[in-house]
Amino acid sequence: MVEKTPFNTQKILKTTYKIIEQLKTQANISAIAIATAGAVDNNNSKVIGSTGNLPSDYSQIEFKKVFTSKFNLPTLIENDANAAAYAEFKTGAAKGSQNSITITLGTGIGGGIIINGKLLKGKSGAAGEIGHIMLGIEPKRKCTCGEYNCFEAYASGTGFRKTIQELSQKIPEFKYSILVNKHTSELNTYDVIEGYKKGDNFCKIAYETWEKELIIGLTSLANIFDPDNIVISGGLSKEVNYEKIEKIINEKIVTTPLKILEAKSGNFSGMIGAAILAQEKFNL
Amino acid sequence: MVEKTPFNTQKILKTTYKIIEQLKTQANISAIAIATAGAVDNNNSKVIGSTGNLPSDYSQIEFKKVFTSKFNLPTLIENDANAAAYAEFKTGAAKGSQNSITITLGTGIGGGIIINGKLLKGKSGAAGEIGHIMLGIEPKRKCTCGEYNCFEAYASGTGFRKTIQELSQKIPEFKYSILVNKHTSELNTYDVIEGYKKGDNFCKIAYETWEKELIIGLTSLANIFDPDNIVISGGLSKEVNYEKIEKIINEKIVTTPLKILEAKSGNFSGMIGAAILAQEKFNL
Repeated sequence: MVEKTPFNTQKILKTTYKIIEQLKTQANISAIAIATAGAVDNNNSKVIGSTGNLPSDYSQIEFKKVFTSKFNLPTLIENDANAAAYAEFKTGAAKGSQNSITITLGTGIGGGIIINGKLLKGKSGAAGEIGHIMLGIEPKRKCTCGEYNCFEAYASGTGFRKTIQELSQKIPEFKYSILVNKHTSELNTYDVIEGYKKGDNFCKIAYETWEKELIIGLTSLANIFDPDNIVISGGLSKEVNYEKIEKIINEKIVTTPLKILEAKSGNFSGMIGAAILAQEKFNL
Repeated sequence: MVEKTPFNTQKILKTTYKIIEQLKTQANISAIAIATAGAVDNNNSKVIGSTGNLPSDYSQIEFKKVFTSKFNLPTLIENDANAAAYAEFKTGAAKGSQNSITITLGTGIGGGIIINGKLLKGKSGAAGEIGHIMLGIEPKRKCTCGEYNCFEAYASGTGFRKTIQELSQKIPEFKYSILVNKHTSELNTYDVIEGYKKGDNFCKIAYETWEKELIIGLTSLANIFDPDNIVISGGLSKEVNYEKIEKIINEKIVTTPLKILEAKSGNFSGMIGAAILAQEKFNL
């Protein structure tokens, strides 16, 4: 069942209650598993702190306690990127490996990291913020987090669009591009990827700039974790040349060769991963 | 017992044999623990691949097998930075925490990462190469690994010296510095740190450039791992303003606050850590 997320904590709860009530009429439910935006504590019970994507009182909800008592079912909550990584590790592109990183290339960059078959959570549950690896020293491009030069500010969809718009004002190739009549603010990743496939030179430069930024971030991750693979999910994952970047990254790293893979679990990977985590935690 | 390391695999082995023979006359030895340069496999039995610091045939030595049979003692080998991190975690600055990163600021940058009380090894044992997190997109400063912009190329002792030399050629403050009469090639970290303490403006700019580069790398690590602490060891660890950089890093991160600490285990931390690992592995 798919519902639009309301930007109001009480309405989010009500919508979720409604979904669970409906599902209860259709199936025998043995646990509740929630994949959410925001970092989730090490007890899988609540969101710690808030991000720009969440209502400010969202972290006050004791999800585990509230859902367990309302539905009399064991409940688990996990960060959606972590859960997606767990899904890829258990049933998706990373199945069979023990050390895997899944990054989500969407509006922002999220990540989940599997080490020896377990999710990396850190001291508070907030680990895996790989969108905020810093790709520069001097303040250049501002990130939504308030800092500069984050991986997310470059390699996310938002970052890619910014790169395109900056390049259009800076390099002469734009004058000869099929996109020349577009206003700067209209330039987007979709058009550039289309143009790149058609052989447009400006689009090629823009695409390869984004690709290079993606490679830099993934190379750092490979050097830190020596993983079996890095899985890419999210809207932009379809646009990655996996064979090419795997080869380049394996030439750059000082650790041992890894695979760069496209995610397999689709848009519901967060939910699938949370469900598997609940299955394991509650021995279902 | 301290011996200079020969740059020849057979001589390294012979020197090590000699040390062990001598130690056997002084104490009752129950295991052999070796801390070495180079990545060590997940069985703690040998070095995988070679680095510039090691003879090319070093990785052919089956350390575990060779020492076990020669001395009839259980043997373990671990990377020195990993072992040092383990020492800090068990008996040093990070004692009592479960998620800790130790970075070695020396000629290069090494690192060891503890997650839930265990060393991060990766698929092959090569994890923790945090000197090769990349701090830039466009090729700017070459690293010993052959790539550009690595953390090590900036924040290590070698990187710091390079920053000083570059700045001396670039910024007008050098003309008024107490170091003005030094030739570029003579400029070093020691003089700049001295000059910084004496209030020299050029030295202050150079020191703070290095400090900023250090902060960028540590911020990325904090965002990825959400660790309890990052411990700094190695020659430059005495020159870090811990209170200042901890405050700045905690303002930059999107994860939860951490401690930045000076290492406590000293120059023998690698050996201490390897010995503790052996104690645990062999139930001594």
